[in-house]
Amino acid sequence: MNDVIGILGGGQLGLMLIQAGIDWNLVIHCLDPDPQASCKDLCTQFTVGSLTDYDTVYQFGQGVDVLTIEIEKVNVDALEALEREGKRVYPQPSVIRQIQDKRVQKAFFRQYNLPTADFVLTDDRAHVARIVAEQPDLLPAFHKLGRDGYDGRGVQRIATPADADKAFGAPGVLEKAVDFDKELAVIVARNERGEVQTFPTVEMVFHPDLNLVDYLFAPADIAPDVNEQAQKLARRTAEAFGIVGLLAVELFLDKAGNVLINEVAPRPHNSGHHTIRANRTSQFEQHWRAILNLPLGNTSAHGPAAMINLLGEPGHTGPAVYEGLETLLAMPGVSPFFYGKAQTRPGRKMGHITVLDESLDGLREKAEVVKASIRVVSNLTA
Amino acid sequence: MNDVIGILGGGQLGLMLIQAGIDWNLVIHCLDPDPQASCKDLCTQFTVGSLTDYDTVYQFGQGVDVLTIEIEKVNVDALEALEREGKRVYPQPSVIRQIQDKRVQKAFFRQYNLPTADFVLTDDRAHVARIVAEQPDLLPAFHKLGRDGYDGRGVQRIATPADADKAFGAPGVLEKAVDFDKELAVIVARNERGEVQTFPTVEMVFHPDLNLVDYLFAPADIAPDVNEQAQKLARRTAEAFGIVGLLAVELFLDKAGNVLINEVAPRPHNSGHHTIRANRTSQFEQHWRAILNLPLGNTSAHGPAAMINLLGEPGHTGPAVYEGLETLLAMPGVSPFFYGKAQTRPGRKMGHITVLDESLDGLREKAEVVKASIRVVSNLTA
Repeated sequence: MNDVIGILGGGQLGLMLIQAGIDWNLVIHCLDPDPQASCKDLCTQFTVGSLTDYDTVYQFGQGVDVLTIEIEKVNVDALEALEREGKRVYPQPSVIRQIQDKRVQKAFFRQYNLPTADFVLTDDRAHVARIVAEQPDLLPAFHKLGRDGYDGRGVQRIATPADADKAFGAPGVLEKAVDFDKELAVIVARNERGEVQTFPTVEMVFHPDLNLVDYLFAPADIAPDVNEQAQKLARRTAEAFGIVGLLAVELFLDKAGNVLINEVAPRPHNSGHHTIRANRTSQFEQHWRAILNLPLGNTSAHGPAAMINLLGEPGHTGPAVYEGLETLLAMPGVSPFFYGKAQTRPGRKMGHITVLDESLDGLREKAEVVKASIRVVSNLTA
Repeated sequence: MNDVIGILGGGQLGLMLIQAGIDWNLVIHCLDPDPQASCKDLCTQFTVGSLTDYDTVYQFGQGVDVLTIEIEKVNVDALEALEREGKRVYPQPSVIRQIQDKRVQKAFFRQYNLPTADFVLTDDRAHVARIVAEQPDLLPAFHKLGRDGYDGRGVQRIATPADADKAFGAPGVLEKAVDFDKELAVIVARNERGEVQTFPTVEMVFHPDLNLVDYLFAPADIAPDVNEQAQKLARRTAEAFGIVGLLAVELFLDKAGNVLINEVAPRPHNSGHHTIRANRTSQFEQHWRAILNLPLGNTSAHGPAAMINLLGEPGHTGPAVYEGLETLLAMPGVSPFFYGKAQTRPGRKMGHITVLDESLDGLREKAEVVKASIRVVSNLTA
């Protein structure tokens, strides 16, 4: 714990990693291109610079003993060079490289027999058009950019052969759409000595009208055998990658009761934010335990929890104002977290709210009240 | 929550206040005489300076909107001047003044009929000698310095009239020793609008051989009527002071089953550290809620907890080394907290460990193992 740690990225995940690291006096340097990044005042040393530039990442890594990430879009060549020079880089650069490219990620799932939606790797738009003409039962499908997609960007729905002109011009994956019943997620941690620990399975509850994640619910409301499938698949995936650190595994539960792997992220994840308040060990503490090769913590929950993302209100851009905060703070078991972002934009992740309650129904009700109570707006409307 | 907040003191209590404040992006300045204070890297702005010097405190207060403390030995005249100029100072300077001097504190308890051990205010050593000669049934007693006592310093036991020459030469309180069964504590929060909320009663378990607080146990193992006495007395005390902020109320349970007030502290307290992991709202978040006039949080516990102070090992002075940390991290429900102090000294508070377990017996067992596992030492022995 006397090592100097570097985090590539200084956003909200870095912020919550630093907050957890205070318990153990961790000395943490951050690199982020945004001079106003969430972490700027809280890390021991803050460097403004590109995460994708070889020299910048290499230089930053020279000043630390252990390197980790809070975002996977980073310069892996630099991380590999640092690793060769003896720096401890977790997750390993080789794992980041596999996950960075959705094409490699999907091929990896197939190679290791990790059940996943059927797919074809595509080179360009013409290739997509040819595939959908030849294999119409792959439709409806999603065309996903191999690299640089993020939070819904880089994904196009291809419902009919005519939609092929909406496909990306760059290398991608054409993936059969899963007719799913639920979207689940399991966060796994693995340390250097190979100890593996999973968090309880969570469920993303979708808005009945809009096709948007409305809130997260932990534990997932699923049959025990489905839970076992999800937990085992997540663990197998982490072991297949041999990752050291956290792996967030997003899953589909299809209408036939099968659990399929959707995609993975080699870092703390939005689907684990509730663990700060709801679990004996948070995902952020668990990440430190994993990458510092310490024994992994007990992930059991104190009780059921919900998590609601706090997104910038549509039509509002500018200095952020949190409306309705008092109502929310007056509700027992409701904890808001803000990410220190001065400016709001429509749909920007500005914070999250954790809700605890003894009963599942109480939790759903409270989550509805919370969602109706708070808005992130700006006095300057866009 | 957009206010700039100043904390007088930058030790471990300030550190844990800052850590809790990250959830809400609080902007926090710290003043501490020690350039190596725990908070130095984590507060938004750190100032090195005396907490007892009028000009230093006044100047520091000019740069903030809300002022609070993590130690009560501060320049109250400066705080009063700042309050007159419209700064929000919580706890109120008038309350800090009453609590700073144990003589005023004890007189306050008597004035408000808050049950407390019998006592006499004393001027000097000769006065103490005269009192014990005249009132032998006050013995055994403790002579406490009115001002500047801290963590056991400034207290002398007076068992017989001959011990009077051990009394302090300065104004103090001669207080009849309570033949107590248990030492209890209740942390109370009160906000500006007069809302009051208590944390569950905790118990300090003493070492069977040494006369030292061995660990804290929450909730206290006491009869329901004793608990009600403790909770009510703590609440009445906070209301009598009219404090805005946290008030830690230390109590004796005497052999006859009466709860007596021992002393109070107007700030987060060692007896509330377990609340970070064990309760729905921690004492640190509750302090922010109270002084920012927000609704107070739910203080209920997830389950029983113990807290063990991590003190510097006798005979060890120098750069701190934590022995046995791995054993401890491998135990489920055991969470160490370190205070970022580079140097250890015999008896210095270096951190604490929170232990959670479903059962009270499991908790006691784990606490024993924890105590036996970890030591704060230095390679340079004193």
